[in-house]
Amino acid sequence: MSTAEETAGDEAQPWGEVTPDAARRLLVAAVEAFAERGYHATTTRDIAGRAGMSPAALYIHYRTKEELLHRISRIGHEKALEVLRTAAGSEGTATERLAEAVRSFVRWHAGQHTVARVVQYELDALGPDARAEIVALRRRNDATVREIIEEGVAAGEFDVPDVRGTTLAVLSLCIDVARWFNAAGARTPDEVGALYADLVLRMVGAQK
Amino acid sequence: MSTAEETAGDEAQPWGEVTPDAARRLLVAAVEAFAERGYHATTTRDIAGRAGMSPAALYIHYRTKEELLHRISRIGHEKALEVLRTAAGSEGTATERLAEAVRSFVRWHAGQHTVARVVQYELDALGPDARAEIVALRRRNDATVREIIEEGVAAGEFDVPDVRGTTLAVLSLCIDVARWFNAAGARTPDEVGALYADLVLRMVGAQK
Repeated sequence: MSTAEETAGDEAQPWGEVTPDAARRLLVAAVEAFAERGYHATTTRDIAGRAGMSPAALYIHYRTKEELLHRISRIGHEKALEVLRTAAGSEGTATERLAEAVRSFVRWHAGQHTVARVVQYELDALGPDARAEIVALRRRNDATVREIIEEGVAAGEFDVPDVRGTTLAVLSLCIDVARWFNAAGARTPDEVGALYADLVLRMVGAQK
Repeated sequence: MSTAEETAGDEAQPWGEVTPDAARRLLVAAVEAFAERGYHATTTRDIAGRAGMSPAALYIHYRTKEELLHRISRIGHEKALEVLRTAAGSEGTATERLAEAVRSFVRWHAGQHTVARVVQYELDALGPDARAEIVALRRRNDATVREIIEEGVAAGEFDVPDVRGTTLAVLSLCIDVARWFNAAGARTPDEVGALYADLVLRMVGAQK
């Protein structure tokens, strides 16, 4: 469960590009409310109240509650894709790039676990158009990881009988960090990232 | 999103021990409602209505909405633990038992994905006592998998630098099947189970 303090710290980060300030504060408040009570139990009045604004002020920036969820989901997926693509496009072997992709994707899901939970668990609440857009972003995430694995197989670095299935499992493993990660727990995001990079290199049979 | 038909098929299974019939129907209806709208957006009236009963009839079996969630969560966790312990206690090497544990745990999370989602995502909605009971069941799940991995390391079958972290990752990988699994998708529960058993044996460095 996120607290106002966490939201101000870790959770504020992905919304840097959202302007004006009031629109950004409403997104942060919506993430917090959706994470605590679920999308359907949250009203636009709740969100405006958490942001210290009136419902009328909310409607200047977002026409509906769904628009808030859509915006959160789009930014969340775009940031995750950016993290993966940066790793995929870096210098180095497929082994090095896959390890870096896993480390950074895990760090993102651990650091932004409240945002990631909302994005993952409330996907069914989006209308058909918004959902189609998000599904397309998710396919690009998949493709980014799949391409690194395919390159590793082609280069003889990896041994992967089922590339699609293994890609799915690698992404699933990293995404689920958002479910169990606890900032007060035994492992830091960096430590989980390092452990998971090692486990994923084993999954793809990377040469040591 | 579960449909009434799915609920009558796949989802009805774990509740076999719940009697009388009305109490069981209410649990099935609660799982469906929580999965569709979230715990906080669901009322006991909604649940009774889905089960074709009056709110007063619901209160004969469950005093509160939280009691329904607690019952669902306890049965869900007990079934998952049973599945793991059966695999752990079977004949065979640690490699064979770990593969069987993963196959059956994955099949459970794929087949019962609606129940598993409710159980995983609504954990924070439980009160302190109910939550403590569920956390204890989760620790027993962890311990069951950790013991197989420790036995495999001791027998020289596995090479695992971080047993606790690897156990966490193995369980997380299997649990997250409930998030993405789609009964209309490309892979059956058995196929996902076979793929994941292979990936997990790689994660623990099992000798081929």
